[in-house]
Amino acid sequence: MDKALHNAVKTALEADHARLAAYLHIETVSAQHRGIKETVAFLKQSFLELGAEVQVWDEFDGNPFVFATFQAGVNGNANKTLLFYNHYDVQPPEPLDEWHTEPFNLTEVDGKYVARGISDDKGELMARLSAVKALQQTGGLPCNLKFIVEGEEEVGSLHVAQMTKAHADDLKADALVWETGGKDANENFAITCGVKGIVSFELSVSTADVDLHSSLAAYADNAAWRLTKALSSLKDDHDHVLVAGFYDDVRPLTASEQRATEEMSFNAAATRTGWGLKRPFVTEDPKTALVNAPTMTINGLSSGYEGDGVKTVLPKYAKAKLDCRLVPGQEPQQVASLVAAQLKRNGFADVQLKFLLGEAPFRSNLDDPFVGQAVETAHEVYGDQVTLVPNAAGGGPQAPFFDAVHAPIVAVGANWSGSGAHAPNESVRVADYAEDVLYTASLLTAFGKH
Amino acid sequence: MDKALHNAVKTALEADHARLAAYLHIETVSAQHRGIKETVAFLKQSFLELGAEVQVWDEFDGNPFVFATFQAGVNGNANKTLLFYNHYDVQPPEPLDEWHTEPFNLTEVDGKYVARGISDDKGELMARLSAVKALQQTGGLPCNLKFIVEGEEEVGSLHVAQMTKAHADDLKADALVWETGGKDANENFAITCGVKGIVSFELSVSTADVDLHSSLAAYADNAAWRLTKALSSLKDDHDHVLVAGFYDDVRPLTASEQRATEEMSFNAAATRTGWGLKRPFVTEDPKTALVNAPTMTINGLSSGYEGDGVKTVLPKYAKAKLDCRLVPGQEPQQVASLVAAQLKRNGFADVQLKFLLGEAPFRSNLDDPFVGQAVETAHEVYGDQVTLVPNAAGGGPQAPFFDAVHAPIVAVGANWSGSGAHAPNESVRVADYAEDVLYTASLLTAFGKH
Repeated sequence: MDKALHNAVKTALEADHARLAAYLHIETVSAQHRGIKETVAFLKQSFLELGAEVQVWDEFDGNPFVFATFQAGVNGNANKTLLFYNHYDVQPPEPLDEWHTEPFNLTEVDGKYVARGISDDKGELMARLSAVKALQQTGGLPCNLKFIVEGEEEVGSLHVAQMTKAHADDLKADALVWETGGKDANENFAITCGVKGIVSFELSVSTADVDLHSSLAAYADNAAWRLTKALSSLKDDHDHVLVAGFYDDVRPLTASEQRATEEMSFNAAATRTGWGLKRPFVTEDPKTALVNAPTMTINGLSSGYEGDGVKTVLPKYAKAKLDCRLVPGQEPQQVASLVAAQLKRNGFADVQLKFLLGEAPFRSNLDDPFVGQAVETAHEVYGDQVTLVPNAAGGGPQAPFFDAVHAPIVAVGANWSGSGAHAPNESVRVADYAEDVLYTASLLTAFGKH
Repeated sequence: MDKALHNAVKTALEADHARLAAYLHIETVSAQHRGIKETVAFLKQSFLELGAEVQVWDEFDGNPFVFATFQAGVNGNANKTLLFYNHYDVQPPEPLDEWHTEPFNLTEVDGKYVARGISDDKGELMARLSAVKALQQTGGLPCNLKFIVEGEEEVGSLHVAQMTKAHADDLKADALVWETGGKDANENFAITCGVKGIVSFELSVSTADVDLHSSLAAYADNAAWRLTKALSSLKDDHDHVLVAGFYDDVRPLTASEQRATEEMSFNAAATRTGWGLKRPFVTEDPKTALVNAPTMTINGLSSGYEGDGVKTVLPKYAKAKLDCRLVPGQEPQQVASLVAAQLKRNGFADVQLKFLLGEAPFRSNLDDPFVGQAVETAHEVYGDQVTLVPNAAGGGPQAPFFDAVHAPIVAVGANWSGSGAHAPNESVRVADYAEDVLYTASLLTAFGKH
């Protein structure tokens, strides 16, 4: 480990603490349209102070993108460019009464930084800027850098696909470092190389113009029964999706993906107790399922009378919200079409499917040299406790970035298993934050060399 | 038809119009605890003015019962007693903006009386009192009369079972005339001789302590799926309930019941268009189903995210409300136990059944002479358009009355198919109201004679 870099990171962290606190202090709640302009100005200024060129892309309908570029230092490799993806918006702080500190005031409690956005994802961007500063003060940047920071991640990254198409040339890079990463419940530092895709849709059925008195169940059909039967026809009793073609396009894991999946760190006991799971796992192989099993989830059910006590009503209407998490090979619109076709075949042509949103899956090639550099650098910084994850179980707009940039994507960061990204008392451990800065600087150094 | 009675009815109706309006003007909304005392005082006074003895039974926790007795006139039959059941409470008038008139001001519109309670059930009691007056003015009452008027029918008749047990001697009668009756969609006057029973229960299931991110569907079970599967296991695709023993205790229809059911008036087309039914009937024989098929209805479904847009949540909890309409031979608690046992057998021991309420079914013996008198009198007043209904598809606390009184029960009244008992612009046609007074007086006359 480079002693000079170590010291430079320490110095940068001290110097940048006020900026971190100031950034977290802005209430950038995209769901409530708060703080956007102020945040964009703050970021522009922060990048400029570090010597970047900055553009604000506001030609789309939503919140502006902030785009910054740094040239490699004189000793750096001007032929290699790394792109960072982050977002400047945060989740609403509610429920406020569950916070032990002020949500938008950075506070240090028991070795942890606590604030809305410290984990997801303002803290992460500031850590990356501290890594930039540390590198600038120890021989200069080892490669070119680009930063794209969006302001709508917490409301669905609504304009990323448009933006990546329009600015493919600007975004050009040899590798991409994604937001959100850190240590898992086993304290292993994870390098995550992709995301699952998603398709969200609503199923609804209407059986009458008005809610009926339940005595008419003698002859009148019931929307709630109809929906229940329709849903039930889509899954067997072993969590297998009964939609013809649903699994057909799933790309089998490569040998490298298979090996990484087997070696992945997964703490079943911590998972069970942490969330109070009352049922057995739906799979015997949760690691493979997390990486490569498409899922179908009922997110919500709604029909008829849902209040207290008794109302003897026969509902005219019933609705379910569902999402399917998708894996490489699957396509959101296609999966929605398969579900609709299956419902029809099962005799539920009256159950309407409404497409809500779709996001493609993405997985980097695990054999890509950049993935190797990310893992190797992790071992230098974190020792043995490193885990390579082929893709996250959750989503994110990686596919449109890849389509524009055609470069491998890894997600790394400073989180710990108790970070509580969207919850009250969101936190990052101070030591993890410092390690993350060192890791980022070291990764850029390795990347510039090869 | 007795000309003198005819005229007396006309005179009584004119004289009693102000009382009808005054009674409807009191806002006796039991669900909102409004107007109870005032209504009880009004009823007591109304009965006293007609020469009844009146008791107010307020020894139970809920709203008082008003009990009134009239002795047969000097030419009447003092050995026979008829008991009327009514209720003085009404449904809330909401939604107020859908009323074309003031809900608690009796208004005459296009040949219809419009007001909250005119159909259900204040108007009916006032019509019965007008029949009493008409009889008193044409030779006196042909039999003894008793009136029991409760104040909690619209909130579940919570104290009827207690009351009928405590006052079985007071209630003693040879026949019972129930609330709610009138003409169906075919304009046939119905004599309805019973009610279905009901058991209401809640099914709920909990799979985790917290709602999870839907990416965890890779290994974590889902309360909404679990509930959907559990519900679906309770019914086949032809509306047949798959609960062992569910149909075992259903008493087959007697020959008389069978005949009455076949001859029952049922307007399938009016039913379909009136409610905008979008699905075929669940039975090929709706008349038999209305009379003697037990049903299982989902009244409501609730789980996870039910708002607009997308929330990728994996629900920790799901809940359904259900009711079963029961027929003679079935018992509410027993049916709930069968459902719970079946869920366990189906592998859903984690789905909890919570009993909410139960009411026994009841059907009068259709061969009882009083039923014959009710039908015969109906033919005298209404001509050919009369239909005998073994029991209503809905419920009511007839069983506890029968257990106390051991007398046949028929429901007759002044409603029409558009009365809209619990809806805005509740109405009774003026001509039907007058006919109902005449019918009631005629029925009492027939009853006194035999």
